[in-house]
Amino acid sequence: MVNAIVFDTPKNGPPSLHLIDQRRLPLETVTVTSTDHHDVANSIREMVVRGAPAIGIAAAYGIAIGSYEFTREKIDGAYPDWMEKVSRTLGKTRPTAVNLFWAIDRMRTLWSDLYAKGLTPLEITRVLYDEARSVHEEDISQNRSMGKFGQELFPESGSVLTHCNAGALATGGYGTALGVIRAAVEAGKKIHVFADETRPYLQGARLTAYELMADNIPTTLITDGMSASLMAKGKISAVIVGADRITRNGDVANKIGTYALAVLAHYHKIPFYVAAPFSTIDFVMETGNLIPIEERSSEEVTTIGHGNRVAPIGVDVYNPAFDVTPAGLITRIITERGVFKPQDLIHQIPSIQKTF
Amino acid sequence: MVNAIVFDTPKNGPPSLHLIDQRRLPLETVTVTSTDHHDVANSIREMVVRGAPAIGIAAAYGIAIGSYEFTREKIDGAYPDWMEKVSRTLGKTRPTAVNLFWAIDRMRTLWSDLYAKGLTPLEITRVLYDEARSVHEEDISQNRSMGKFGQELFPESGSVLTHCNAGALATGGYGTALGVIRAAVEAGKKIHVFADETRPYLQGARLTAYELMADNIPTTLITDGMSASLMAKGKISAVIVGADRITRNGDVANKIGTYALAVLAHYHKIPFYVAAPFSTIDFVMETGNLIPIEERSSEEVTTIGHGNRVAPIGVDVYNPAFDVTPAGLITRIITERGVFKPQDLIHQIPSIQKTF
Repeated sequence: MVNAIVFDTPKNGPPSLHLIDQRRLPLETVTVTSTDHHDVANSIREMVVRGAPAIGIAAAYGIAIGSYEFTREKIDGAYPDWMEKVSRTLGKTRPTAVNLFWAIDRMRTLWSDLYAKGLTPLEITRVLYDEARSVHEEDISQNRSMGKFGQELFPESGSVLTHCNAGALATGGYGTALGVIRAAVEAGKKIHVFADETRPYLQGARLTAYELMADNIPTTLITDGMSASLMAKGKISAVIVGADRITRNGDVANKIGTYALAVLAHYHKIPFYVAAPFSTIDFVMETGNLIPIEERSSEEVTTIGHGNRVAPIGVDVYNPAFDVTPAGLITRIITERGVFKPQDLIHQIPSIQKTF
Repeated sequence: MVNAIVFDTPKNGPPSLHLIDQRRLPLETVTVTSTDHHDVANSIREMVVRGAPAIGIAAAYGIAIGSYEFTREKIDGAYPDWMEKVSRTLGKTRPTAVNLFWAIDRMRTLWSDLYAKGLTPLEITRVLYDEARSVHEEDISQNRSMGKFGQELFPESGSVLTHCNAGALATGGYGTALGVIRAAVEAGKKIHVFADETRPYLQGARLTAYELMADNIPTTLITDGMSASLMAKGKISAVIVGADRITRNGDVANKIGTYALAVLAHYHKIPFYVAAPFSTIDFVMETGNLIPIEERSSEEVTTIGHGNRVAPIGVDVYNPAFDVTPAGLITRIITERGVFKPQDLIHQIPSIQKTF
């Protein structure tokens, strides 16, 4: 499996974060190295790294790197002020995925506690390295749990449609939606995957097809407009996607095009599953229509690949990166703690509060 | 408006068909000239010209050119045998759009009749030039009728979603679905168009956006996966598309992605209109599931623009060019003879038979 996020903390030198540049896959495997938190923020904003859980992990490493910068750069002012500045820079990169804010908050809880206890910034930095690594490792183990729970929902053999990339590349490894598919295949089920190419950014064509082919999981690439006719022909047993934010009521923000699939699955009476770790659940936000939806540049639509224009110059473009699927269209939400009906997520809040 | 099909019959020379190469729009306006029927067939197959009515018109000109070839080339054998060969070559180019076969049949009715009456191939050729021009001119006037009838279905102001290109470029001029939009704008209605880019071939981004911008009709380009969330937000007043074949029962084959829009419009209680001339109706075929659906090469999906690869080498691809929307999801079918409920088309058969 691809290892898209590698964190390095040499004894005598600054920490560095190595990210596979997902904008250039599958044609080239190029690594982008960040040695300060601005580089990490840029990599998140520019989608070198993408996928809600992966963004959270990168941000956690970014906080740890930011903490090291304080010790190295002899920065004026207090450590907490600097760390809040680092957090703001990382938090402003992308608005929709809640894992980003969850990771920044988790790191803040730790560094502010240790600072209050009188540890030095250098001592805190060492602990933050470990904490970011824990965020990363926990994500992988959560994905494996999701896979174990989720694969039971799949038939012994069938075709599963997925959208965007909710795989190893979108997470710490293994994947959420693709993790469930991997677990089904590991359990001996005969699963054929249909991968939506996922315009405009083509995560399905570039990343999902690449990941699944590398694992020898049978995969057919289609354009986004083809899913409906496959459903009408009875060729889709289930739809499974990841999530960028899930609200209290079970609404799900995910890659643009997800809502269309949910409506189409509902119409064709096909189960529609969402796989996401608890860190994707925003227990504060009431409903999905409150989720800020990032709008990205028109160039993502008017050009494809590296600047190849496919639309007239000056054309008006609407390019929301995500849409919201209401809980009522979601059959089950698969998490590392089990499988829930969307409306039952809210009952999980107390145990969440105990965890933190 | 763009004039994408020009037929030239100089006094002292062979006829020629000049087609704007729609594969290269909107970046370049290049004309492909055909002086024999094989060239015309290639232009249809390779999508230099596309759109069901435009394919029919090009085929009619192709038959006329084929007839000229007989007179010029001193071809062995009888004229009718040659003309059947020409018809087969043109008929084998694309399987789904019925206008192709309709046009070839219309031309056959004429040349076989004139041959039976004793006219020489040269004399017949002259009449076929005029007949092909009539096919072309009638298409434009039918589009204008469709526009007049269809625009009454639109609100005084609102946003209309369209898919693929059913415009001047897909027809003899003016357009079917885009003709209705043009007529609404000419009638003083304030119509904003959302144009699906229409993967894999990007007819929406390349052709619809281009055509409508040239006419100063406000147009916003979106990817195919974005329509559903615009519908959910109440931003779409109506959906209108063209058709490649309509069967007796009112089922409609059209560009892949159309069926998804029909289901989504149904779910959001948005009217779904199809605009097409009677030549698109296949009164012989009972239902849409009998329509042959063309599957095109995987390169249309795995590469974008001129060979820019966006998917892993060797990936499996499913690339049907069309899908079928059942009559039950279609609010009205707009034709040059008026607006019909899909299930009422069948009652129009007697008048059709009189026409031929």
